Amino acid sequence: MQDNDNRWILAAQCASRLGTVDVVTRFLKESRCYITEQHSFDDRLGGGFFIRTEFRPEAEGFDAAAFEAGFAERAAEFDMSFELTPPGRRMPVVIMVSKADHCLNDLLYRYRIGQLPIDIRAIVSNHPDLESLAAWHEIPYHHFPITPEAKAEQEARVWRVVEETGAELVILARYMQVLSSNMCKKLSGRAINIHHSLLPGFKGAKPYHQAYDKGVKLVGATAHYINDDLDEGPIISQGVEPVGHTDYPADLVAKGRDIECLTLARAIALHVERRVFLHANRTVVFNR
Amino acid sequence: MQDNDNRWILAAQCASRLGTVDVVTRFLKESRCYITEQHSFDDRLGGGFFIRTEFRPEAEGFDAAAFEAGFAERAAEFDMSFELTPPGRRMPVVIMVSKADHCLNDLLYRYRIGQLPIDIRAIVSNHPDLESLAAWHEIPYHHFPITPEAKAEQEARVWRVVEETGAELVILARYMQVLSSNMCKKLSGRAINIHHSLLPGFKGAKPYHQAYDKGVKLVGATAHYINDDLDEGPIISQGVEPVGHTDYPADLVAKGRDIECLTLARAIALHVERRVFLHANRTVVFNR
Amino acid sequence: MQDNDNRWILAAQCASRLGTVDVVTRFLKESRCYITEQHSFDDRLGGGFFIRTEFRPEAEGFDAAAFEAGFAERAAEFDMSFELTPPGRRMPVVIMVSKADHCLNDLLYRYRIGQLPIDIRAIVSNHPDLESLAAWHEIPYHHFPITPEAKAEQEARVWRVVEETGAELVILARYMQVLSSNMCKKLSGRAINIHHSLLPGFKGAKPYHQAYDKGVKLVGATAHYINDDLDEGPIISQGVEPVGHTDYPADLVAKGRDIECLTLARAIALHVERRVFLHANRTVVFNR
Amino acid sequence: MQDNDNRWILAAQCASRLGTVDVVTRFLKESRCYITEQHSFDDRLGGGFFIRTEFRPEAEGFDAAAFEAGFAERAAEFDMSFELTPPGRRMPVVIMVSKADHCLNDLLYRYRIGQLPIDIRAIVSNHPDLESLAAWHEIPYHHFPITPEAKAEQEARVWRVVEETGAELVILARYMQVLSSNMCKKLSGRAINIHHSLLPGFKGAKPYHQAYDKGVKLVGATAHYINDDLDEGPIISQGVEPVGHTDYPADLVAKGRDIECLTLARAIALHVERRVFLHANRTVVFNR
Repeated sequence: MQDNDNRWILAAQCASRLGTVDVVTRFLKESRCYITEQHSFDDRLGGGFFIRTEFRPEAEGFDAAAFEAGFAERAAEFDMSFELTPPGRRMPVVIMVSKADHCLNDLLYRYRIGQLPIDIRAIVSNHPDLESLAAWHEIPYHHFPITPEAKAEQEARVWRVVEETGAELVILARYMQVLSSNMCKKLSGRAINIHHSLLPGFKGAKPYHQAYDKGVKLVGATAHYINDDLDEGPIISQGVEPVGHTDYPADLVAKGRDIECLTLARAIALHVERRVFLHANRTVVFNR
Repeated sequence: MQDNDNRWILAAQCASRLGTVDVVTRFLKESRCYITEQHSFDDRLGGGFFIRTEFRPEAEGFDAAAFEAGFAERAAEFDMSFELTPPGRRMPVVIMVSKADHCLNDLLYRYRIGQLPIDIRAIVSNHPDLESLAAWHEIPYHHFPITPEAKAEQEARVWRVVEETGAELVILARYMQVLSSNMCKKLSGRAINIHHSLLPGFKGAKPYHQAYDKGVKLVGATAHYINDDLDEGPIISQGVEPVGHTDYPADLVAKGRDIECLTLARAIALHVERRVFLHANRTVVFNR
Repeated sequence: MQDNDNRWILAAQCASRLGTVDVVTRFLKESRCYITEQHSFDDRLGGGFFIRTEFRPEAEGFDAAAFEAGFAERAAEFDMSFELTPPGRRMPVVIMVSKADHCLNDLLYRYRIGQLPIDIRAIVSNHPDLESLAAWHEIPYHHFPITPEAKAEQEARVWRVVEETGAELVILARYMQVLSSNMCKKLSGRAINIHHSLLPGFKGAKPYHQAYDKGVKLVGATAHYINDDLDEGPIISQGVEPVGHTDYPADLVAKGRDIECLTLARAIALHVERRVFLHANRTVVFNR
Repeated sequence: MQDNDNRWILAAQCASRLGTVDVVTRFLKESRCYITEQHSFDDRLGGGFFIRTEFRPEAEGFDAAAFEAGFAERAAEFDMSFELTPPGRRMPVVIMVSKADHCLNDLLYRYRIGQLPIDIRAIVSNHPDLESLAAWHEIPYHHFPITPEAKAEQEARVWRVVEETGAELVILARYMQVLSSNMCKKLSGRAINIHHSLLPGFKGAKPYHQAYDKGVKLVGATAHYINDDLDEGPIISQGVEPVGHTDYPADLVAKGRDIECLTLARAIALHVERRVFLHANRTVVFNR
């Protein structure tokens, strides 16, 4: 990861059809690009073809624009959508939080040491609590309180931050508000939420308390794209932690923090490294 | 486990009250029994006190009956229920199966090498398929087919086997029939089922297909005591296995077999070693 | 896995050079073969290019011999070695055991239900103990005892079984003998051993006892190709299990059985599905 | 954990002898202390008896000094050492670091939110790099550089900090210096180190590079008490993370950070909650 200084990524998807891999790999060969890692998958049941390629241009002076234009012509024949990502690119993101700071703290640390290829443009919250944490990392913090009568307006302010910062991904790092249907649509495919249960178990509020009442022996966390159906969006990653009878609800909350952080960070890494493909209500994830 | 040749187990529970531990440990001391391992727990929220003690009599000629009679007097004061288990005791069990044989095969292997302190008295099935497997292990196999009109009668035949064999535990090792409410009551606290999902997610039929449709990244298994509410009984153990987009439903079924076997075997071991205590709809489990 | 009735596998490797992927994918396209899953990897540090492709011929009457001949020509240019595996092919194997039967029992079960695409041609042992287990599965069992003076002769008899059965893989399922240097060479790249520790920790004899003495909190198992250097061959898979102070050596032995079975079965599945590539003393493993 | 506002802890150990549990539980009963959780263990092979009790005084005005004096008399008969820990007590600690900040950052976060019952009195480093991190958390930072000729003097300065702050535990959170034999002795039983491998595999320098060269499929971390034998002290906790052929040494370093943080934090929690007992070169750990 750290060493791949000249690693370009080409991610593409289209309907299944003979030649879907060849159209990618032939063009790369012709462009004198050496493929260092490649995954492709054809979903026999769900339909759809997905490919992710890491490559290194062999010739000096690789022209990305020319590459994209050239490949677009070939891809058109397959009605293939694609995205080219240059080496070292950091995806601009906005993080949304409420009062719990464990996921934010974890993401800021990874960001600070360069472990996640993201560029945190802003942190937005409905509470003022985490401002000093943002300040120490020198990231703009926007406190947009929510009132029942002004929820739409608050979301408009959030949206303005997303647009003005050029954020390509919104991370809901324990943002404890339900987004409006309209906002969900705008953020479709580019907003990742962490829910503190193993979905589809324990949807909704206070999942650790639900887990305690049920007496489960494992708790977990689920990172998923948001959609209009609460806690039902396509799952990217899940993590799990054993628990027992000595764990009261407050203990589950405490134990769950680590697995929430890890699961969210993992989902973000997969997303920004273009390892995740959305298809209907499921994801194709080419793990490292 | 294997080495504890002279290990007695005393398991007890009662309502919380000062002296609950002392009444146990003092009597053991007076009886010249050396405690080699002990766990106790008081459930602050759910209520109830639970204790499990392994001990080794220091004097020759330990008299179990006298011990039980003596302790019963002390325990009465605390309204404490208890059970004394001698070293090397094998709990008599009946296993119920349908057509899938992975859990049965796994249990028979552990039984054969003496890893599980159980004595399999009979295998009961609504299908004839697994008879030869039972035969190789020299265990009586009862084929009691089910017809919609004669379900009650079939259950009566099952119950007769349980009674005649003196089974203290019934293991539903992928028995694909819902037991009647009456049967569930009779078997309350002494029948363990393995469900092939991480309950409470994916209750009911075909959980792996449900998991595939949902696009989860983890599948699992849950071993629980049965009760009258399908797939809702108190959970003893849960296991988990990572899956991905290349796993079609048939792959999930295949991948899930291992975790089902392990989770069920673990729950049985915990139960027969008296590490599990039932309380309301939850369990206290003193893990090894 | 189970559903892929028309899934061919092409696995290939060669030195790194522009066009290594293209030579494979172009030929598949020209042969009207649809790629359903593909992984490729270029080892920047260790050197070498590795590719594994699953494909489905789109035309009726796929001619494997013609495909191989045609691809051989293209591959020659890259000095690329390759192997084509037809759908449903079961790799012929010989299993070697001593007295412990847990891994053998596990493999026989997976074999019986068709979960592992292997064809067990024979079981060879230096002890007679596991003959009846083999008999129940109707697999020839060869008891070749070992005496210090006749070790070479015993290995010659083993080798004859390997040759006569056409075994392509030899599985050392807790075979507690060190193979001679000569035998290791003959079996290079096609013999998988399970060692009951997390190598490189606890090499050699009685690893669980070593683990107990050290007081580790995790034990594990390692499946690896054998080579001339005891317990040092290229690792395919490793598994792990938490343990604690209550686990005496006999308990570690018992707890370790499950993880040994799972780790060995996993390595065999990876090998026979052509997901493993050997390169120097390491492996490239394209996981499912 | 969080809720146990009135939870006292009594931890004790002595040689095995009839009555070891009774002497504890009887005194608690007589002192009107209700036991909420208890573990005891007798090490049949290694020798030694260990007990940990959480209790809640039932009477108002529990007098800890009187309790200790009273229990000391009883314990003397068994030559039992013990320690009483009041509710909410935070153990004073000093953290030692070099340049890597992931473990420190993680500990500071847990400290800040009150998840670890420690009181960080000082951070000591042989480098100035992490001073601002310490400053943000308002913790004194001592930069004591090391030169080959003045190593003893540097250790003397470290020791002075330990003494002056009253630290009961020293945490080596990736402190990349070998302590002198003298310092190890002074810190015996009260200094915890995190080593970035699954000991006993990959002792010494650059364990991730060793792991890469070996081609392992799992990397891990080990938290252990330090002793005079480098990377050989008694193990408290170990964690593990799957890796693969795409992970170059820099990737292993990155992937390992999480498991190092978790394993160290877990060991510290176990230690400060008095769940760890040292005995010869092993530990007894009463997990939550």
